[in-house]
Amino acid sequence: MRATVIHGTRDVRVEDVPDPTIHHPGDALVRVTAACVCGSDLWPYRDFRGAPRRIGHEFVGIVEEVGTEVATLRPGQFVIAPFVVSDGTCVNCRNGVHTSCLGGGAWGGKDARGVPVDGGQGEWVRVPVADGTLVATPELPAPSQVPDLLTLSDVMGTGHHAALAAGVTKGSTVAVVGDGAVGLCGVIAARRLGAERIVVFSRNPARQAAARSFGATDVVEQRGDEGAAAVREMFEGVGADAVLECVGTGEAMRQAFGSARPGGKVGYVGLPHGVELDVVRMFRRNVGLAGGVAPVRAYLPELLDDVLAGSIDPGRVFDLELPLEQTPEAYAAMDERRAIKTLLRP
Amino acid sequence: MRATVIHGTRDVRVEDVPDPTIHHPGDALVRVTAACVCGSDLWPYRDFRGAPRRIGHEFVGIVEEVGTEVATLRPGQFVIAPFVVSDGTCVNCRNGVHTSCLGGGAWGGKDARGVPVDGGQGEWVRVPVADGTLVATPELPAPSQVPDLLTLSDVMGTGHHAALAAGVTKGSTVAVVGDGAVGLCGVIAARRLGAERIVVFSRNPARQAAARSFGATDVVEQRGDEGAAAVREMFEGVGADAVLECVGTGEAMRQAFGSARPGGKVGYVGLPHGVELDVVRMFRRNVGLAGGVAPVRAYLPELLDDVLAGSIDPGRVFDLELPLEQTPEAYAAMDERRAIKTLLRP
Repeated sequence: MRATVIHGTRDVRVEDVPDPTIHHPGDALVRVTAACVCGSDLWPYRDFRGAPRRIGHEFVGIVEEVGTEVATLRPGQFVIAPFVVSDGTCVNCRNGVHTSCLGGGAWGGKDARGVPVDGGQGEWVRVPVADGTLVATPELPAPSQVPDLLTLSDVMGTGHHAALAAGVTKGSTVAVVGDGAVGLCGVIAARRLGAERIVVFSRNPARQAAARSFGATDVVEQRGDEGAAAVREMFEGVGADAVLECVGTGEAMRQAFGSARPGGKVGYVGLPHGVELDVVRMFRRNVGLAGGVAPVRAYLPELLDDVLAGSIDPGRVFDLELPLEQTPEAYAAMDERRAIKTLLRP
Repeated sequence: MRATVIHGTRDVRVEDVPDPTIHHPGDALVRVTAACVCGSDLWPYRDFRGAPRRIGHEFVGIVEEVGTEVATLRPGQFVIAPFVVSDGTCVNCRNGVHTSCLGGGAWGGKDARGVPVDGGQGEWVRVPVADGTLVATPELPAPSQVPDLLTLSDVMGTGHHAALAAGVTKGSTVAVVGDGAVGLCGVIAARRLGAERIVVFSRNPARQAAARSFGATDVVEQRGDEGAAAVREMFEGVGADAVLECVGTGEAMRQAFGSARPGGKVGYVGLPHGVELDVVRMFRRNVGLAGGVAPVRAYLPELLDDVLAGSIDPGRVFDLELPLEQTPEAYAAMDERRAIKTLLRP
């Protein structure tokens, strides 16, 4: 089959790799019908070290084969794969933190038995602990629903995690740092949770428009301390109740803390790179920090209901669609900020 | 009048100072009937720089005089003073974060007008924005209730803040770092919020017994990584849902994070000294951090109800009582860990 392999910095290639097979009776084989490139894939894309490896962790597709122990899935079903493998039964999964699954694994990495797992940017994927990992739709979705469903693999659940971690609730004032796919999904999530005002930091007219279409009420073009000051000014001089940090850089985190009111919370979902926390300032202002790698598996059922009911349409974050063979261009377009998020069709 | 002044490291003295008077029509004059020494007073006690200044921020007493603008208080009432002055009307007070009051001030420091404010460890205190700051009891309390009421000035509300920030709720598993007065009040707060298991770190038999009497179900004597590992072992190998960090040192914070399960929360209320947060580890494990300088004024009404109903008895954290003139010994006893907390009688 064809699948994406990262070889070096700004060097991803679509290559022939072995077809996957069932290794364990709990596995399923999924034929990928749509995949995508994540903002977090750009970290290795921009600075890669080590041996070539498979990449991609967001995909949807059709179950083609299941192992003898798979109880809840059958061939022919449409499934959504969260960006982390999880068994659904360990203590962390039971606590809703599937990203810390004790029996899980990583796409493009290994499963709990040490067996390599396919990356999501390819034609087929062997899915370990398939009953725990995959979520099937009640029926085959219409083609127009596929982009929405694909976002449940990562970005929509991640935006939701940021909003929950930041404590967004009915009537909240919210600021969102990051106008990428996760930030935009954070806007959707905040609106869905009942936020009254949602401010997005963005200087890009297309992204500003997207944010407004998803429910943002205000846009701030300034960045850094100046941007945070603008948000504080908007909310009685003290800042927003809840701030969603959807980038992961030190600058973004400082901007997030500067935008939160005393007693407010920052919900963060961007893998921190060069972030230093000023704990004494956090303490004096009672601004909390919560979030992390989003357990999207926990949120998938409720967000799926909303997608199928048509009450959210996060698939609009995809502004570029390419065949799998053009995966290198998918990365380049996102790296150069020509695309918010690229959908790949194997 | 007599009041406590800190002159240098391990040098506090009770001295003659000017009697306070009403400076502003919103002021009240309170005759202090009980005060105490805070764990946080030990920071300047152990390392003092700068000019001598008044000290103490926890007291209760009788209103003796009110300014013409004071609307809710009258002479003769028994009042509890939270450890921070707050007007009760600014945006931060309305948000329940009275410690960030825009019109407040500090005991032993200055009020919002720049006028010096008395410290709490003295015979009298001028209370600025008295309507906002003070909470009066419905009637004069029995002498036996005074220690309980005095804890509402700081430690009981602070323990409650730690428990709320850590997300303690019915059925939670909880670990408490710190067996001082705040940690013990954290135990009371966690039990009050419905925690199912409450583990306290302590090697001191008297404090272990106190913690158990307040509702701790388990004691761990190990510290540091070993202590955290013991807590993880107690809770399915992953740790407690909620961890109350009631010390403020780097070691205590590491122990707290090591004791929290993935998806759990650390609630911290000890002013951080030498704390560095490992944000990448927090992110990977989804362990949040919330808390800060406790807005005890916000919690005072509900905790007061519980004290008056006899359902909590935090006054038992006082294990030493001295006349005001012996304040230096009160500090020394706490500094040397001969006393958990000292009550002072002016």
